[in-house]
Amino acid sequence: MSNFNFSIKAKSGNARSGILKTGRGDIRTPAFMPVGTAATVKAMLPESVESTGADIILGNTYHLMLRPTPEVIDRLGGLHKFMNWHKPILTDSGGFQVMSLSKLRKITKEGVEFSSHLDGAKYMLTPERSIEIQHLLDSDITMIFDECTPYPATHQQAKESMELSLGWAERSRKAFKNRDGYGQFGIVQGSVFEDLREKSANELQNIGFEGYAIGGLAVGEGQDLMFSTLDFTIPMITEERPRYLMGVGKPDDIVGAVLRGVDMFDCVIPTRSGRNGQVFTWNGTLNLRNAKYIEDNSPIDENCSCKACQNYSKAYLNHLVKSNEILASMLLTWHNLQFYQDLMSRIRSEIEANNYDNFAEEFLAKYNSDNS
Amino acid sequence: MSNFNFSIKAKSGNARSGILKTGRGDIRTPAFMPVGTAATVKAMLPESVESTGADIILGNTYHLMLRPTPEVIDRLGGLHKFMNWHKPILTDSGGFQVMSLSKLRKITKEGVEFSSHLDGAKYMLTPERSIEIQHLLDSDITMIFDECTPYPATHQQAKESMELSLGWAERSRKAFKNRDGYGQFGIVQGSVFEDLREKSANELQNIGFEGYAIGGLAVGEGQDLMFSTLDFTIPMITEERPRYLMGVGKPDDIVGAVLRGVDMFDCVIPTRSGRNGQVFTWNGTLNLRNAKYIEDNSPIDENCSCKACQNYSKAYLNHLVKSNEILASMLLTWHNLQFYQDLMSRIRSEIEANNYDNFAEEFLAKYNSDNS
Repeated sequence: MSNFNFSIKAKSGNARSGILKTGRGDIRTPAFMPVGTAATVKAMLPESVESTGADIILGNTYHLMLRPTPEVIDRLGGLHKFMNWHKPILTDSGGFQVMSLSKLRKITKEGVEFSSHLDGAKYMLTPERSIEIQHLLDSDITMIFDECTPYPATHQQAKESMELSLGWAERSRKAFKNRDGYGQFGIVQGSVFEDLREKSANELQNIGFEGYAIGGLAVGEGQDLMFSTLDFTIPMITEERPRYLMGVGKPDDIVGAVLRGVDMFDCVIPTRSGRNGQVFTWNGTLNLRNAKYIEDNSPIDENCSCKACQNYSKAYLNHLVKSNEILASMLLTWHNLQFYQDLMSRIRSEIEANNYDNFAEEFLAKYNSDNS
Repeated sequence: MSNFNFSIKAKSGNARSGILKTGRGDIRTPAFMPVGTAATVKAMLPESVESTGADIILGNTYHLMLRPTPEVIDRLGGLHKFMNWHKPILTDSGGFQVMSLSKLRKITKEGVEFSSHLDGAKYMLTPERSIEIQHLLDSDITMIFDECTPYPATHQQAKESMELSLGWAERSRKAFKNRDGYGQFGIVQGSVFEDLREKSANELQNIGFEGYAIGGLAVGEGQDLMFSTLDFTIPMITEERPRYLMGVGKPDDIVGAVLRGVDMFDCVIPTRSGRNGQVFTWNGTLNLRNAKYIEDNSPIDENCSCKACQNYSKAYLNHLVKSNEILASMLLTWHNLQFYQDLMSRIRSEIEANNYDNFAEEFLAKYNSDNS
C-alpha cells in the first residue's frame, strides 16, 4: 500500500472521519491546517503549533518564491528543516496570492506574469514553475496551479476561468514528480454554477489526483451560497479521496462544511484574529480589547488547555492587547489555534459516535447565542 | 535572620559573587534583570525568561501606573500573579520614565506633575505615591523615587538635583512599609562629581536601605566616564549591601562594572536589540538582517542552549527578520536573554574561581575582536 492514502474510519450522515496517511505522518480528518505563510505560523513556535494538536500546516508558494526563494530553501534542506516543522506541509500553488497580493498581473494561457508586492520585481508563475517550487520546498501535498475565480462572475467568465484552470491542472499533473508518501490535489472551480463545477470535477478526476480541493469559495459569496454550492459539488467528488475546502473558515463554516462531507480546511482567521485581540470560544467570539475585561480575573475558557487559558486572566490579556504587546499576539494566537484543533477533535469524535448532526445543531445554537 | 539579606560568597579583586535572598527566592549575583516594562518581558513567555536562568525581572512603576493602574493590579492579586512570574520583581520608581517619556512635566519639591504619553491625562507622582504604587504591585524590591540627573549637568545643577533626590529618599523610606522578605534600595546620584556622589552615598546610608543603586549613569556620558565615576563611587557604598547599576548595559559595560564591584544590572538592550535583529555572542554582535546570512545554515552560537540556537539557522532567522515576523522577535529576544544570563553565570563562576580579572580581559579581547 502506498504511503500516501486516505481511509475513512467512520461516517455520520455525509460527515466523514478518517486518516490521510503521508510520508511525514498521519493527518486525522476532518483536519484544520494552520497557515504558515512565510515559513512561520505567525507568533507561534512550531512545537506550540504541534501541542495544539495540528497534524499539518500550510505554506505559501507565492510568499516563499519571493523570499527567501525556493532554491535557497532547497539548498538549506527543504522547508521542514528550515522552519523546524517536521510533520506534513501542504503548499498552496500561488494562484490565489498572485491574484490577491501582486501588482500588474497579466494572465495568459501560459501562466501569470506579475510584479512582487515586496519590491516590484517581475516574475512569471506557470503551472510548471509552481509545481517545481512546491517540489523544491519538499511539500507533502502539492496543489495544482489554478485561477481562483473571483466572485461574482458571470457564467461565461466562470466558464473561461474554470477551463483555463483545467488546462493548468493537466500541466500541473504532468509537472508533478510523484513519489511514495507525497500527493497532489486538484482544485475544483466553477464559481456557484453547478454545470461548471461538474465539468471541473469530472475532468480533474479523469486526470486523477490524490485529493480534491474546492476552490473559489469563501471569496465574498456568503455562507448560504457557499453551503448550497457545496451541496451540489461534494457529490461530484469521489468518496475515496480527501476533500479540501480552501480558505475556510470560521468555526460555523467548518461545522457546516463537515456536515456536507468536507475533510480538510485552512484559514488565517484564528491566527489573524488572535493578533487583533479576538478569540474564539464554544460560546462565540470575544474581543479582548473590550473595556469590560479590565478586571475580569477569569481565563478565556477554563476548560481550555492552551497556554493563555492555563496561566492568564482576561484582565491581563486585555492589558496586553491594549498595550500592543507581542505577548498578546502570542497568547491569543495560541488560544485560537487550540480552539480550532479542539473543535476538529470534537468533530471527529462526534462523527465516530454517529452523532454529528446533533452535535452540529447544538454547536451552532451555543456558538451563535452570545457573540460579544 | 531576615528573609531579605545579602551574603557574599566569593571575591575576586573588587568583583563579588553572592546571594540576595528575598521572600520570593534567591537572586544569584552578579545578576542581570530582564526588563518587563508593561508587565511582560516583550516577546517572551515568563517560563521562557525563567528558562534562561533569570532570578528576577524588573517592572516599571510609570507604565503600570498609567495602565492598567496599580489599584487594578492589586485587586487582581498583585503583579506576580497578573503576569505569571512568581520569582522576585524589582520595580523602578517611575522617576526615570517620567523624565524620558511623559509630557509637560513640572518638577517641584513635592514631586512631578506630568501628562501621560498615552492619552495626555494629568498625573502627580510623589515619593509617597511611587512607594504606594510599588506596594500595590507587591514589588519585592522597591526603589526610592528620585530624579535621574540628566547628562551633562553643571556641578550646581547636579547638586540641586541630588539634594532634591535626597529629600525624596527620606520621604520614600518613610513611606515604605517594610515587611520580612521585601527590601528597598536607595539611589546614589551626583552625576560625575565625586563630592556630590559622596554626599549622596553618605546621606542615603544614614537613612539606611537594604541595597544601593547607582543612578544617573548610562545617560550619554560614555563608558570611560561611567567607569571612572564607578571607580570613586563604589567605595563609598558599604560592602555589606547589594550594589545595583541602573540601566546598564552592553556586555562589555557589565563586565567592566562587575570588575569595579557592581552586583546587579537591568537594561532593555537584549530585548530591544532582539526585536531589531541584533544578537549578542561571545565574539560580539551580529546583525541578522545582513544579506550575508541568507544561506548560512549554522546557528547563531552552536554552544548556546536557547530555543533559537537549538532549532534554527541564521538563514531562517535572517528570513524572519526581513519578513518582520513576530517569531523573529521571539527567537532573537530569547537568544539575547540567554546570552546575558550565560554571561552572568560565567561571571559568577570566574569570581568564585578567583579569576575574574583574567576572564574580563579575555572576554573583552574576544568580544571586541569581530563586531560584524
